[in-house]
This record gives sequence, C-alpha cells and structure tokens, in this order.
Amino acid sequence: MRAVDLIIKKRDKLPLTAEELEFLIRSYTDGVIPDYQMAAWAMAVRLNGMDPQEITDLTLSMAHSGDMLNLKDIGSLVVDKHSTGGVGDKTTLTVAPIVAACGLPVGKMSGRGLGFSGGTIDKLESIPGFHADLSTAEFLDQLKQYGIVISGQSADLAPADGKLYALRDVTGTVDSIPLIASSIMSKKIASGADAIVLDVKTGRGAFMKTLAQAEALADVMVSIGRLSKRRVIAVLSPMDQPLGFAVGNALEVKEAVEMLRGRGPEDYRYHCLHLAAYMLLLGNKVTTVDEGIVLAEKAIRNGSGMAKFRELIQAQGGDVRVVDDLESLPKAGQVFQIEAEQTGWVSAVDAKEIGESSVILGAGRVKKGDPIDPAVGIMVKAKIGDKVEKGQVVFEVHVNNEARYHEAMVKIKKALIISQRPVEVPPYFLGVVGLDK
Amino acid sequence: MRAVDLIIKKRDKLPLTAEELEFLIRSYTDGVIPDYQMAAWAMAVRLNGMDPQEITDLTLSMAHSGDMLNLKDIGSLVVDKHSTGGVGDKTTLTVAPIVAACGLPVGKMSGRGLGFSGGTIDKLESIPGFHADLSTAEFLDQLKQYGIVISGQSADLAPADGKLYALRDVTGTVDSIPLIASSIMSKKIASGADAIVLDVKTGRGAFMKTLAQAEALADVMVSIGRLSKRRVIAVLSPMDQPLGFAVGNALEVKEAVEMLRGRGPEDYRYHCLHLAAYMLLLGNKVTTVDEGIVLAEKAIRNGSGMAKFRELIQAQGGDVRVVDDLESLPKAGQVFQIEAEQTGWVSAVDAKEIGESSVILGAGRVKKGDPIDPAVGIMVKAKIGDKVEKGQVVFEVHVNNEARYHEAMVKIKKALIISQRPVEVPPYFLGVVGLDK
Repeated sequence: MRAVDLIIKKRDKLPLTAEELEFLIRSYTDGVIPDYQMAAWAMAVRLNGMDPQEITDLTLSMAHSGDMLNLKDIGSLVVDKHSTGGVGDKTTLTVAPIVAACGLPVGKMSGRGLGFSGGTIDKLESIPGFHADLSTAEFLDQLKQYGIVISGQSADLAPADGKLYALRDVTGTVDSIPLIASSIMSKKIASGADAIVLDVKTGRGAFMKTLAQAEALADVMVSIGRLSKRRVIAVLSPMDQPLGFAVGNALEVKEAVEMLRGRGPEDYRYHCLHLAAYMLLLGNKVTTVDEGIVLAEKAIRNGSGMAKFRELIQAQGGDVRVVDDLESLPKAGQVFQIEAEQTGWVSAVDAKEIGESSVILGAGRVKKGDPIDPAVGIMVKAKIGDKVEKGQVVFEVHVNNEARYHEAMVKIKKALIISQRPVEVPPYFLGVVGLDK
Repeated sequence: MRAVDLIIKKRDKLPLTAEELEFLIRSYTDGVIPDYQMAAWAMAVRLNGMDPQEITDLTLSMAHSGDMLNLKDIGSLVVDKHSTGGVGDKTTLTVAPIVAACGLPVGKMSGRGLGFSGGTIDKLESIPGFHADLSTAEFLDQLKQYGIVISGQSADLAPADGKLYALRDVTGTVDSIPLIASSIMSKKIASGADAIVLDVKTGRGAFMKTLAQAEALADVMVSIGRLSKRRVIAVLSPMDQPLGFAVGNALEVKEAVEMLRGRGPEDYRYHCLHLAAYMLLLGNKVTTVDEGIVLAEKAIRNGSGMAKFRELIQAQGGDVRVVDDLESLPKAGQVFQIEAEQTGWVSAVDAKEIGESSVILGAGRVKKGDPIDPAVGIMVKAKIGDKVEKGQVVFEVHVNNEARYHEAMVKIKKALIISQRPVEVPPYFLGVVGLDK
C-alpha cells in the first residue's frame, strides 16, 4: 500500500477502506508517512468529504493509534460527556458530580482552553492545589474509589489525533466535519467510554456557526457511535451568548458551586440538568429524560452532588475549603463595571466577543502553552431578553492589568446590543440527535 | 501574509492575487513555507482549479523564482518548442536543426525520460561524447555561435518548479491542469523564449488521455502566453501509438538522422514539418504555415538541416561520425523479432504498453536517476491501419538482457491489436490552439 495511492483515491472521491485508513493513520503516527502527504490527504477529505463508514473507520484507527483505556472492571457502565466548546461553558464542573452522585461513574478527560473557548481543566486548576495530570493508573484508581475523575487528556491516548490536529491547524483543514468528528470520537473511544453524551454548541461563540452545521456534526458523531457499537447521543445547544453569567476560570468555578447549592443562572441550570439526565439515561439509571431531570435535581437538593464535587477536588489535591468559602478562590485586583448606554431590551451578548475579551484579560490563551490568569474574567449581568435601564451595570470585569482592561472593554461593549423593542428569551435547548427511545 | 490563509482562500474557491502567489512561491522556494502547507495548497488547487489570471501569475512567480535567461543579445527572436511527452517522440532532434537551418535560432532546454515517456537529452546522449550539462554562459555562447543548442534543464531556472513537482509527485497533485501548465510555462519563460510552440500530445501514450483534456491544457497554456505577453501556440497531436517506428534512445537518433536525410516514417516527417512550420511562423520567418512547411522541406532537401544537426553534435562534444555511419551508434547484443499472430489490419499499437516495455528493456527509467541503456528499444514495424499477414514481423526488439526481453515481450504483444476489418490510418494532426493569424 502506498500513501500516494490513498491520497489519489480520496482526491477522486472514492471511499477508503478500513484497512487503508488503518495503514494511513498507523504509518502517520509512526512517522513513516510524512506531514506533506497527510496534509494533501486532509485537504482532499476537507473538499471531498467521507461517508459514515469511512469516518467510523478513521475514528477507530485514530482511537487505536495509542493506548486504549479499559474501564471494564469499574463494575458499571461508564458514561462520558463532551462539549464542542463554548464561552462560559462550565457544564462538566456540575454535571460530572451530579451524575456520579446518582451512582453512575464519570471518568472524564478534558481539555484546556484555546482561543475564545474555555477549557474544563483550566477552570478546575483555579482551585488551589488541584492537579489534573493523572497517570492512567491514578485515573482508574480514582474512578474506582470515588466514581469521579476529571483529568487532562493523556498523550498516550489517540496520539494520531494530536499529530493530525496540529497539522490541520496550519493547513486549512480544521473545519472538516469528518475530521472534527473523528478527532472528538477517537479520544472518547480511546478513553474507554461505553456511552457518550455530546454537547454540540451552535452560534456566534461556537465552532459550528449554524444549527445546520451543528446538526450535521451531531449526525456524523452519532453515526460513528452506531457503527462502532457505542451508545451516543448529541444534544444541540445554543452558544450565541455565554452560558450562565460567569466567563473566566475562578469566576466559573464559583458559579458552578452556586449551582450545586441550588442557585445560579437559569440557562446554565437548565442545560446541566438536561445533560445530566441524558447521561443517566444512557447509563441505564433512568428510563426517561424527565426521570433523569428529577434524579439530577434531587442530587442538587439533597447535597449529594456537592458532596461528590468535594470528593473530586480532594482526590485531586485541591483545597476543598473553596467550596465553603468562595472568597478563597483567586480574586482579581480590580473590578470594573460597564453600564448600559441606553434603556431597552438586550438582543445580543456576542459570545465570541466576550470570549475573546476574556482572552485579552488573561483568562484564556492565544496559542497552546500560554500562561493564564485564573482570577480574571467577565460577569455578564444582563442576558438576551432582559430589560435594562440606561446606567444599569451590564458587565462586571475582573482585571489584574488595567491596560488590558481598556483593550477588552471596547470588545465587551461591542458584544452587547440593546433593542428598543422587547426581545424574547432564546431557547436553552435546540434538540437532540440519536435518541432512539 | 500567512500561508494558512492563502490555503484557506484557495480551499474556499477564491482566486489568489499576484502578490499572494508571489509570496507563496518565494517563501516555498526559500524554505520558509514547509512542504506540508504547499501540499495542502496543491490539493486545493487540484480540486478547486484556478482562473487564467491566477495560473499566469503562478507561472510568472515560478519563472521568477530563480535566474531568468536573457536572450535579448542573440540578435533575433528565439522560438522555443515543448512537447508534453510521448513514446518515440524524437521531434526535437530534427525540428531544432531544421528551424535553425532556416535562420531562426533554437536554444532549448530539454528533459530526461521518466516512466513510459522518453526524453530528448537521453536520446542525444546515446551519441558517444555528447554532453548536455552546459552552464548558462556555454548555452548562450553556443546559441550565438551556432544558432542551436540543446541542454538539460538548468537547476538555476525556475527552482520552485523542481521543488513543487517533486512534492506533487508524492501527494496526488500531478494531474492538475493549472499546475501542469504553470510547470511547463514557467521553465519556458525563465529560459527566455519570446515565442513558444507547444506540442500537446493526447492518447494512450500521453499524459492527457483525451482530446478534451489536451485542448483544456493547450487553452490554459496559450492564455498564459497571452497574459504574459509571449506568443504561444499549441499543436494538438495524437499519441495513441508511438511516433514513427523507433522507440529507444540510439534507435530514435538513427530514425531522426534518416529523416534529416529525407527518409523516415511518414507520421514522424509530417509531425516535424508542421512543428517546424509553426516555429518559423512565430519567429516571423514565414507568414503562413504552408510557407513554413515548404521552407522546412527545403532545409531537409538541401542538407542544411543535417549540417545544422552536425554542428549541434560537434558543439556539444558528440562524435559526429554517427551521422555518416549510423552503425557506430550503440547497438544491442540481440535483436528478437515478434511476428503477427494473425492476418488483418492493425487497429492499435498501444503507446503506453510500448513505452513501458522499453523501460523494462532498460531504455527508460522507473524513477529519477536510474541508469539507462542507450542501445535497447523497440522498432514498431506495423502501425495503425497497416495490413499485416500472419507471421509477418511486427516488432523488432533490441535487447541486452534476455530475461528482461521475456518480460517485455508479453507487454509488447499486448500492445498490438489486429482487426479483421480494414482500419483507417488515424490523423497525424488534431488541431492547433492560439493561432490568431
């Protein structure tokens, strides 16, 4: 088998077989196929697409390119959860403990933030002492002992994905649904989940700008699940404005703890309860989504979710006092307030502008490896549909560097649009793909 | 300017500007843009195409990536000729001296054979002592002194093309009309020609398998000429069966000399006279193609073409005795004959099979740098339309390695198809593109 022949096959719109994709991915991972051949192939995939069987075979080849985590002796079905990324998306911080508290183990590998999109690991690391660089053995031990673990992505899982992603980033082949879907799913499959709830975001602050694109990606990932014998459903959720109020690492942890206490913004709460419910459904803990919501609500009400969150933090070396005293989380030196410049109804709080502003403040990264400041960020005090009065505080900006604030402020102000007519509160939920019961 | 943005632009079917292409080609030549980005870009070009202005800008960027030969002080218009490659295509060997004998200087850089397609330099090097590795100064001196020079492609001209071609070869991006056209034309423009006659082959033994593909390539190259202010015409000629009888380096030189003596196969003679006529027309030596044919025929009849061929060989260190004594050319150890297995009319002598058979015999290369045997090859004794009797010799195979002969024989026999009904002699000439007078 020669790489060039496989490139030509894809170039000519012919599907590649499982054996061909296995050869391609294995040889690429081993350094036998050079970057330039893989780049040509990736562009051919970007322009000619792949059929569902090919995408599944590609995903499995990538999953098998490194270690495969075996969760069989956890003694229960393990359900994973993955979000395609957004602004203010601290869902995992609450959903994982809620689901674990309901008796379904959650062993999750999460990522760090890049660009306007935040990352779960960065958020958790704003808790003093918390560490996410677990070995595979530590990951499995903690999962067995506590039923909950959230670690950084292991480099030993799906190494082909890491290599291919870096190449796609510089060759204009990032926005390919087959390549996005196989990237996400290969990591999930390698990390051993039996069932996966995907949270596919759409809107200004998401990678998928339109609902149609999000649905297409969801469909493909659900079909990978079906063809690879994993139970997969994909929830479609909006990301035009940030989720909840808090954007920024410690600010988001605070909001997550508030939610586990039974408070917190309505959209965030609604989103978490639904995601938890779908996870409980796939994990056979409930038989309907409504039953799942009731169970998740109960885990909040009776404090078992919060208790599980404490266990998670403690198990991973974090200072558990933050849960009782949110003031002990890192705090920014200055807090600026931005007021509404007119009276009316909020018609937009552009998630991308807010996400980018938070990067300017230091809460996120322009490129991999950049340091971040856990304390800084933005509290969104008015959301789409809210009535605001001129002079009312609409943003609270947590700052450690005043020069950066002035730069960020311009963008933050640009994010907010106030309409003279009432604006409806947008839906919290846009649909679900792959739910066959 | 960032390479990834230019890749994305082409991926999204947007045209690149002259400045963008200049940046891309210059940075690639300088090693600033890595192969993997260029590979992704080439695949995007292969799949999304380029408009005529883009192809011209790309061609000029590639031409300007190295030295530009200045032929201004040759004191005459210089007309170049380029064939897209075929089997038994020894056209340059006769056309260059004929045209030079008519008073139009011919300074030509030629290539070596690769795969089933032969190369002019390999053919000339079968003449003992002949060397083609001239410096630019030697090239210009000889052109001034003799009005004829045929050298190998200088690495200093259009180096971007050499680098890009090697990359295309391993990334499935060879068969892209914009990339083929810019590759050919960049070298021609860098080597200083004012006017170019292109010989675009089509058929089984050509790169362009159909007339439509050949016309498309011809159109693009003529439009590059128009947009870059060079006079360019493209002749379309058939390559379903080998041109003439001889396939193999010394055998082809022999046939070329025969033709300059006024003999030789009819199709080859017809083709050469027409190409010479078009070159004379572009070089303002004649005002019609018919006049050009008359002038070219005269150069054969009066021996001036042959005299110019002698000058060429002598100037480049070749043993000029071969011209008078063709037996002094390298000769194969054995000559096998293949007979017709039935009586009928020849309906095919597959040029690709014959070309590949000659490679098996040692006359050509599988990959760059392979050694070749100048003596071996195939004489095609029956051409399409000929009536043959069972037992009549249809191929004469010149061999230095009997094992290779047995392998080649199977292919050679496969090339010949005999029909029970009369077959028409196919046209020698399929059209011309870009002739505006």
